[in-house]
Amino acid sequence: MNMRIPKPTLERLPLYHRAVESFMAKGREAISSQELGREIGVDDYQVRKDLSWLGAGGRPGYGYDTSYLLARLEEVLGLTREHTAVVIGAGHLGSALSQYSGFRRYGLQILALFDRDVTKVGKYLGDIPIFDIRELGRIIKEQQIPLAIITVPAREAQRVVDLAVEAGVKAIWNFAPASIQVPPGIILRNEDLAVGLATLSHYIVYGQPSD
Amino acid sequence: MNMRIPKPTLERLPLYHRAVESFMAKGREAISSQELGREIGVDDYQVRKDLSWLGAGGRPGYGYDTSYLLARLEEVLGLTREHTAVVIGAGHLGSALSQYSGFRRYGLQILALFDRDVTKVGKYLGDIPIFDIRELGRIIKEQQIPLAIITVPAREAQRVVDLAVEAGVKAIWNFAPASIQVPPGIILRNEDLAVGLATLSHYIVYGQPSD
Repeated sequence: MNMRIPKPTLERLPLYHRAVESFMAKGREAISSQELGREIGVDDYQVRKDLSWLGAGGRPGYGYDTSYLLARLEEVLGLTREHTAVVIGAGHLGSALSQYSGFRRYGLQILALFDRDVTKVGKYLGDIPIFDIRELGRIIKEQQIPLAIITVPAREAQRVVDLAVEAGVKAIWNFAPASIQVPPGIILRNEDLAVGLATLSHYIVYGQPSD
Repeated sequence: MNMRIPKPTLERLPLYHRAVESFMAKGREAISSQELGREIGVDDYQVRKDLSWLGAGGRPGYGYDTSYLLARLEEVLGLTREHTAVVIGAGHLGSALSQYSGFRRYGLQILALFDRDVTKVGKYLGDIPIFDIRELGRIIKEQQIPLAIITVPAREAQRVVDLAVEAGVKAIWNFAPASIQVPPGIILRNEDLAVGLATLSHYIVYGQPSD
């Protein structure tokens, strides 16, 4: 199987995953590309193109087998494996993400929180220890942690990202409202919580679209 | 101007907004549909179709005027207006969202937090008061607040959504990892923080795509 999935397709795969789960919860054994397309907001041609990357072919007049499609999505999205991560910044958002129950089904295990506030260091959040930010490099290296989740204030984001990258993480998930840079080969995902708000603002002002 | 923008287009508008801001920050006065498409992961035909809903026409050989496009996006996304909201659930995530600096540029003003924990009620988070959940209906009605942000545990989500809807909110922004129902005419946006994680998991396991 070819794993060089284009980025726009890959970013739609979690939406397919959620849609397929929801159709299965309703007892559906098969689903058409038109139905999937309506659910995630692309046309059925795009659906067939996206899903062809998974080697999941639909059958004319039947559609896609939901169980098989779900299994392929989970494999390609890496959901069948456990991942470890650290959270940098033990403020409200870092604490919220460390405890977020929605992550469990994606196999994410958060091993440690980091902060520079000495009143937090040495304590636990649930069963996750809070370390001094100066321990970051050592712990990432020793435990070979691939992912750092960034929740520090915007002005400190680049500095802690540099520390994490130097220590060997493969990926950065940035929740700080800051534009940060990573070297080639390092994966960066910026999570802009305000995107959802922008869509809602439109609906509140102008009303909801009919379709 | 026609405001019945299709939902998939509307959900791409915040991505256009961010892309245009970023091109303007680099000093660009015009931008092509191809460049915009590359940035947000759709083809240039789709870009021209999406932006035609804004009444923003590109000129052949020049592209779109970035200042004009930004202004149109801000108007259509309702970013030029102030919005008020309440946050239900004064735990880590509710506290984080109440303080999230990224919301300010979207004109969102959070007027109150609600919780059922009596040790939190009556206190302030920054300058935002925390009220007893039993005050929710009264405050939403009196202040005509259009948006409720839900950060309670999953099992309590539907109940507080029902209270907020009954009190007259127009829109629900749900961060609880729970599937909730709203009556017709009420806007619902589910924010699944795990979607970003799923994409990162794939990259960590299989490496980053080249394009």
